[in-house]
Amino acid sequence: MKLYGFWRSLATFRVRIALNLKNVPYEEVSIDILQGRQFDDAYRRVNPQSLVPALDTGEGPALFESLAICEYLDERFPAPPLLPKDAAGRARVRGLALVHAADTHPLIVPRIRKYLAQELKQDDAGITRWGQRWFNEASASIEQHLGEPTTGRFCHGDSVTLADLCLVSHFVGATAYFQCDMAPYPTIRRIVDECMKIDAFAQAHPLKQPGAPASLGH
Amino acid sequence: MKLYGFWRSLATFRVRIALNLKNVPYEEVSIDILQGRQFDDAYRRVNPQSLVPALDTGEGPALFESLAICEYLDERFPAPPLLPKDAAGRARVRGLALVHAADTHPLIVPRIRKYLAQELKQDDAGITRWGQRWFNEASASIEQHLGEPTTGRFCHGDSVTLADLCLVSHFVGATAYFQCDMAPYPTIRRIVDECMKIDAFAQAHPLKQPGAPASLGH
Repeated sequence: MKLYGFWRSLATFRVRIALNLKNVPYEEVSIDILQGRQFDDAYRRVNPQSLVPALDTGEGPALFESLAICEYLDERFPAPPLLPKDAAGRARVRGLALVHAADTHPLIVPRIRKYLAQELKQDDAGITRWGQRWFNEASASIEQHLGEPTTGRFCHGDSVTLADLCLVSHFVGATAYFQCDMAPYPTIRRIVDECMKIDAFAQAHPLKQPGAPASLGH
Repeated sequence: MKLYGFWRSLATFRVRIALNLKNVPYEEVSIDILQGRQFDDAYRRVNPQSLVPALDTGEGPALFESLAICEYLDERFPAPPLLPKDAAGRARVRGLALVHAADTHPLIVPRIRKYLAQELKQDDAGITRWGQRWFNEASASIEQHLGEPTTGRFCHGDSVTLADLCLVSHFVGATAYFQCDMAPYPTIRRIVDECMKIDAFAQAHPLKQPGAPASLGH
């Protein structure tokens, strides 16, 4: 499979973890979204949305949207499963995933930061305040959900689920990109630490990818 | 089942359609998100995110996030199905759904409009420009996807899927709330018209709900 992604992309991070967990061989093609390469005609033909990631499975048009790609991988390569078996558990896992992947991450992607800077004249501090606001709101609600008895070693029970893929993506965005204080969210921290002990997660980390800087400088 | 929602909420609209299509009896409890009732303690206990919708199934904590709720309903009440049978088709349907439900709608919900107005000092025109930008970008990429041969009477083949629930939600947001010109997107228009002929869609329309104004005045 061919994954179109970028080292810094939190959505690519999620898909990379899913591919690693399921031992699916893949090649990653870097689309530099900080340089605007997602708007090149060649990539627009892959993903009309000009966003990463996209997954070329070799069959039909490339798949798009990270959660749709993760669900696809879970259906095509069922082991290990990324969703629990019961409908209520699956809803909880998908809900937790969406708190980050729908209600937080899309608010801070490059096109939004660019609009905030160019159209709404926000400086770096203004953009950081914007990002922190949404990351912190999401962290608070995720932390509250993680107080439920269905939480275990991971977000839902003792096995990794789609919620954990999104939780680590959330954590990296909150801390490495927006310098959020995560002290008020100890359960998030505990589960992220648990996840990052797993190779499939560690090797997918944005700062471990080719082209990534050694650190983000803060 | 008890659906916590609000007449104007596009995410509630999606869940209402799913409940109607599957003939699931439900009672809707209105949480006035324009008046800030989602922040009341009583509702925070239902949904820590203070967003609508939430679905109380009578078993365990209320479900949250509209797409997670729709997938739950599809698993619990399989007929009629909201997803095709093949993994690639399911990925396409989920991807199309997420273009609206993750990459567009979360950018224009009340908490964001409030931040734009209060923190970034945007007037109504500025907020409308903001919304139009993201709705138009999404419409363009959805329209391009709908040029694919897997599109039929509806977004994916000739049966309603989750992509159609999100497409009508997208259309109502774009036109009724943000006055977008949809003329460049004839396939979206055609499929929305097709959907709105179905009672389950028509009866779920935001402006058909108790408490909704007769029109939005534009």
